[in-house]
Amino acid sequence: MKELIAPTGRTRVVREPHRASHERAVIYGILDEGLVCHVGFRVEGQPYVIPTMFARVGEEIYFHGSAASRMLRNLSSGLPVCVTVTLVDGLVLARSVFNHSMNYRSVVALGTATLMDGPGEKLAALRAFTEKILPGRWEEARQPNEKELKATSILRLGLTEVSAKVRVGPVEDDAEDYALNVWAGVIPLRMVAGDPERDARCNASMAAPGYVERFGHTER
Amino acid sequence: MKELIAPTGRTRVVREPHRASHERAVIYGILDEGLVCHVGFRVEGQPYVIPTMFARVGEEIYFHGSAASRMLRNLSSGLPVCVTVTLVDGLVLARSVFNHSMNYRSVVALGTATLMDGPGEKLAALRAFTEKILPGRWEEARQPNEKELKATSILRLGLTEVSAKVRVGPVEDDAEDYALNVWAGVIPLRMVAGDPERDARCNASMAAPGYVERFGHTER
Repeated sequence: MKELIAPTGRTRVVREPHRASHERAVIYGILDEGLVCHVGFRVEGQPYVIPTMFARVGEEIYFHGSAASRMLRNLSSGLPVCVTVTLVDGLVLARSVFNHSMNYRSVVALGTATLMDGPGEKLAALRAFTEKILPGRWEEARQPNEKELKATSILRLGLTEVSAKVRVGPVEDDAEDYALNVWAGVIPLRMVAGDPERDARCNASMAAPGYVERFGHTER
Repeated sequence: MKELIAPTGRTRVVREPHRASHERAVIYGILDEGLVCHVGFRVEGQPYVIPTMFARVGEEIYFHGSAASRMLRNLSSGLPVCVTVTLVDGLVLARSVFNHSMNYRSVVALGTATLMDGPGEKLAALRAFTEKILPGRWEEARQPNEKELKATSILRLGLTEVSAKVRVGPVEDDAEDYALNVWAGVIPLRMVAGDPERDARCNASMAAPGYVERFGHTER
């Protein structure tokens, strides 16, 4: 049976509810594929939305807070946030402008983020960021020292109030528009990796590690 | 001379200020390349971040509000929002985990969004959405009728309080880490279009329009 994360009044999808998913596997799949999340929070009446790196670990997501020092000021009791991850899969060209759309998969997670405190916790989060994208990198690169851990701010958010929204598949036109002589279809979009560019100060005989080569050949 | 949009206390980049740009051309370039924006707003103490389509027209951005009916409830006097556009350009693998990064270009626009009212205004906005991505599509597709215009919610935000943040270029390691025998470099990332998928109910002899073919061959 598909396991669900029960929707709340705030995560029930009001607009286009047939595109909503509350399946844990769907939600986690989108989060695990995304490279960047957008974190929303509020400072003195003004919303801010900041892109940052993140990783899901179990039923939580960890995200970098250092990109937004503004976030951290009022954080003693936690900060209400929304973390959104969006994957763009295609442009949908209907016969009518009104039915133009995109294929996409997105997750919206609501709740109160708290700061990760201990160096052990932070180390685990940084490891998750690295290993999510490049499994093997953590053991090869120089790991963070005490000073670097102190300089790193990481926030955690439990995935208790979270939903996905997905549009997939072909054009959906109004019945009477199918007779129009207008090209319709989908332009698929995806993120691809180019050839790795070795740093100029690396030994020129050093081959790119397997996880770098594989990254470029993984569908995303 | 480069034209700047003067930073305010809220758009001055605090973290990594050397990556900030307040150049109008840089900001507009990022906005015009982005397919999706993330809109942040607040309802009953909870921030929300919703992905949606948008277009820049002159010194404003227009974005779809229908995706977030929540946004519109309190809108009579305008809604404080943050609209963020992020382009991911690459993964930066430093010799140390701490200096791992991404190459990216992002824009953060702050202000008060208002609802576009008149059918003429809305038509112009829908035209901008379409023509931004697929120049020529507007004239070919069936344009919105009165009922569809009524069903469409579009918000506008003036680009008066806006800044860009850009990371570009190679790895930056700490001086002493360059001696480490660790592969370092950049994995470039970009969004690419696959072959257009003609709708099953289109006449099979109908070739994809020029703007569809060109979309796939445009760097983005």
